[in-house]
Parts: sequence; structure tokens; C-alpha cells
Amino acid sequence: MRYVSFEAEGRASYGIGTDRGIFDLGARIGSVIPDLKSYLKASELGLVPSAQANLSADYAVGDIAYLPPITEPGKVICVGLNYEGHRLETGRPKQTYPTLFARFADTLIGHGVAIRRPPVSSDLDYEGELAVVIGRSGFRIPKSEAASYVAGYSCFNDASLRDFQVHTHQFMPGKNFPATGAFGPDMVTPDEVGELDNLKIETRLNGVVVQQAKLEELLFSVEDLIAYISIFTPLSPGDVLITGTPGGVGFKRTPPLFMKPGDVVEVEIDKVGHLRNEIAEELPRG
Amino acid sequence: MRYVSFEAEGRASYGIGTDRGIFDLGARIGSVIPDLKSYLKASELGLVPSAQANLSADYAVGDIAYLPPITEPGKVICVGLNYEGHRLETGRPKQTYPTLFARFADTLIGHGVAIRRPPVSSDLDYEGELAVVIGRSGFRIPKSEAASYVAGYSCFNDASLRDFQVHTHQFMPGKNFPATGAFGPDMVTPDEVGELDNLKIETRLNGVVVQQAKLEELLFSVEDLIAYISIFTPLSPGDVLITGTPGGVGFKRTPPLFMKPGDVVEVEIDKVGHLRNEIAEELPRG
Repeated sequence: MRYVSFEAEGRASYGIGTDRGIFDLGARIGSVIPDLKSYLKASELGLVPSAQANLSADYAVGDIAYLPPITEPGKVICVGLNYEGHRLETGRPKQTYPTLFARFADTLIGHGVAIRRPPVSSDLDYEGELAVVIGRSGFRIPKSEAASYVAGYSCFNDASLRDFQVHTHQFMPGKNFPATGAFGPDMVTPDEVGELDNLKIETRLNGVVVQQAKLEELLFSVEDLIAYISIFTPLSPGDVLITGTPGGVGFKRTPPLFMKPGDVVEVEIDKVGHLRNEIAEELPRG
Repeated sequence: MRYVSFEAEGRASYGIGTDRGIFDLGARIGSVIPDLKSYLKASELGLVPSAQANLSADYAVGDIAYLPPITEPGKVICVGLNYEGHRLETGRPKQTYPTLFARFADTLIGHGVAIRRPPVSSDLDYEGELAVVIGRSGFRIPKSEAASYVAGYSCFNDASLRDFQVHTHQFMPGKNFPATGAFGPDMVTPDEVGELDNLKIETRLNGVVVQQAKLEELLFSVEDLIAYISIFTPLSPGDVLITGTPGGVGFKRTPPLFMKPGDVVEVEIDKVGHLRNEIAEELPRG
């Protein structure tokens, strides 16, 4: 099953992606369950009937604008240094524990929406990553049970302003500019994705492959991450884990390779999806 | 003016602290404006009349249980290394920019509520800090205007599990255990606090002074922090900035001084408040 959050006809909704188009759940149950995060919570409470086969299509894919699959996650927890190639290129020592930092939910954008380069930095870099959406509430989750807490997977581009990221040893500033967390297109359930290990993750900038790995190269697996993170913080339906990026980032190249307005960046993960975003200047506010 | 969030008679509410007791705003306008964060948003929109003088008292202070002044902040942004004494004791280099990391809102507790030590660590340390509550929406706020974005101040104890904090170079795990962010008792408006520089901040563990500084020792002032943070992330009413801790933390002492169940920790800031919390074992869940 592929779940999608979207806008159509001036209205935010969510639904199920089928071969024929989008089945609009929000139009049917949105007055009680307004978004996909609420839908995951309702599912945990047994309030959602299992989806039928042969769903009708309310919209063609071309008629919707994608929102991030989870539009307002309670927690977005990002993992650094989780592929050996990226750890080596950053010169960081081997880690016994996952390296974790937070993204605010207001940085997220959907598939097809522009990643914005702010006027205060030109060091805008890509980071293709596998996103994991949590489907059940849990605290101190044993690794052996961790897989059952996954609602689905998606693609993520953890776009980073590298100069702000290294202002100090804490990454927050470089990871939290508006419209820098590209997330989507949809959330694909684990039964449809199957085993992660053999899946390829690839980032392309203007059509050129700049990052490529197998998911088996993750130093801390999805189960490792859920087990470790839930030691210190309770996880809830709709929380999002961003599992880290492979080697090949732009700021460790000679010369550095940064994204600029007009560029097109793609993150593609086998069976999970194909996330495409243009780069544009930040929009003026107010 | 002192604003307080509280529980009384089994109901969460918020109001104004007076010499005679608590004036319950939630009982009067809670059906439209349910909490102090919403009240700050409503104030920004001009929807809140200026508070009258001679407010009646609905509750004696002894009849309420304190909640964090802001119960569900959109963003809680903490500052590290913001007093020279603490920077020196940690051995970190001088910083050109503020060191920032995030706390999740579900870590917050109010005045008089127990800080919980988890079963997975005994390295529970205190950090007395000045908290700043944001009152207006802003992005790229000039330092010269930053003071006008402050709704009020409070005390904060950024209690930290030091072993988890140094698992990697990113602080998240040690700063996000449940019931480790003590916040309160109330939010005091800037006109009542006046100039910050001469105010003393003091942390006491079991009555012994363990941290003491003047707020003028802040390396990055409240205005500096608002200006810098709002370069990368929009600030909104109810967002909370935790401005950093003075020297004297427990884990840099010889031998280390950690908090244990039964201890009492206090953070007191002149004119702002006096935050007192016991330490207890984490409650079992489920």
C-alpha cells in the first residue's frame, strides 16, 4: 500500500495511491481523521477498517500536489554518519552509537515542491536518505520487535546549509532552514517494500549520479535505530526517522558541489519511490 | 504580569498569578483560547484585551499543580556553552556562533513535579538556565528589534544524562529523556523583570549552591540568540529558548556530582522565579 498526502482543488487531504490514481481518504473520513498522522494513530487504536481491494480513483496523479507524507510529524529525528562512505569523507571517528539531531516539522516539503536556497548561504548540499515512518507508540522497544513499529518508508532529501551546519559542533542551524527537508512522494508499507538490504538508494543532481549505495550499507539498521532512539524518547505514530546519507555529498568534493536555483535533485530508492525537487531561491516573506 | 499554566480540580488551565492567588483565564476564555501558547498567538492577533487591574483570585497557589508555562511549545531550542565558566569546564573552544540543540516538548515538566532518573543511566546532572518565551512571529529578526519578540522569562533546569549526551558529538539523546526539562514556575513579562544583566541565577542541590552567575555573563545575549536563531528558523508565539547554563555542572567535578532519587534541585533567578523539583526514579509505563 502507498499512502499519499496531497492538495487537490485547494484542499489538503490524504489517501491511497493505486495504479489508477489516488483514492481520497480525507474526503471520506477527514472530518474525524484529518491527516495521515491521525490515520496512523487511529489504526493503532483499531479504528480504521482494513483497506478494500479495487479502490476507486478520485484523482489522477497529475491532478494533485504532493505534501510531505506526514505533514506535521511530532518528532523528526535525523541520523548522521550512518554509511561508512559518508563517515570516511567527513573524517569522523567510528561511532558506537547513532549520531542524532532534530529537524523541525516546518522545514518539510513534498515531492515536486522547490527546495529553497536562502539568501544567507550558497552552501546548499543534497543528502539522499531513507525515511522511516513510525506506526505504533513505543518506549524502550526491543530490537527484535522494532520492525513491527514501522508504518512505512519514503525517500528524503536532508538538504543542508553546510556553512551553518559547522558554525558549532551541533548541526541544528544547517539542517533547519525552511523548505529544505524534501520528503516523499508517498509512504510505502513494509509488506510492499520487502527486505531492505538489496535496495539501491541513489541521488542524482541534474541527472548525474552523485550518491549511490545499497541499504545493507546502513551502519545502524532501521531496527537498531528504533531500539536506540526509543531508549531515551517515546516514539508515536507519525514520527519520522531519517536514516542517514551515503558517501558522495557535495561539500566534501574538490571543488565543492553545491545546489543552485534551477538545478534538479532526485532521490530514488528501489521499491520506495522517486523524489524529485527543483532548487529555487527562498521566497520573500511578509 | 506573571502567567501560569496549571492543573486544578482535575482540569488543565492557565491564568495570571497575583498577590492574592491565581486568576483563571482558562475558565473564562478556554473554549476559544485553550492554553497559554494560544493566548500568546491571540495576543499577537489583537484578540486579547489588556488585563484588568485588581483581578480576583480563583485559586490559592497551594490549590494548583504547576504545568510548564508553555505546555506544548512548537520549538524548544537550547543553547550550550553560553557562560564562559561552563565553556572552560567543558574544554570546548570559544564559539563564534551559539551552540544549539533541540528538546522535544514531551520532556517538559512544571514546578514541583519530579525530575525522573531513568533506569538506564545514573549520570543525571543539573543545568540551571534562563528560559525565554517568544511572543511574536518572526523570521530574520534584527538584533535591534529582538527584545520586542520576548513574551516573558522563566527558570529552566535542562537536566541531562551525561553518558547519553556524549555517546556522539550530537547532544540529543542526553537531553531528551522524559521528565527531565523542568520549566517554571511561571512566565514573567519583561516589564516586570526589567534589565537582565544584574540578575543572579543560582542552582542549588539539596540546599547547597552549585551554580551561580549574573545574567550579564551570557556570552550570547537574549537579543543575540533571537537574531541568530531566526536567521534559519521562523519563531512563533510559545517557542522557548533555553539560554545556557553557568559553570559548576556536576559531571565536570571531581568526583562527579550527579542527582539521585530523593534529592531536591532548585533554580532561582532574581525577579524571574524559583523552580524547585525533587528527583525520583522514572515511572514504569504501560
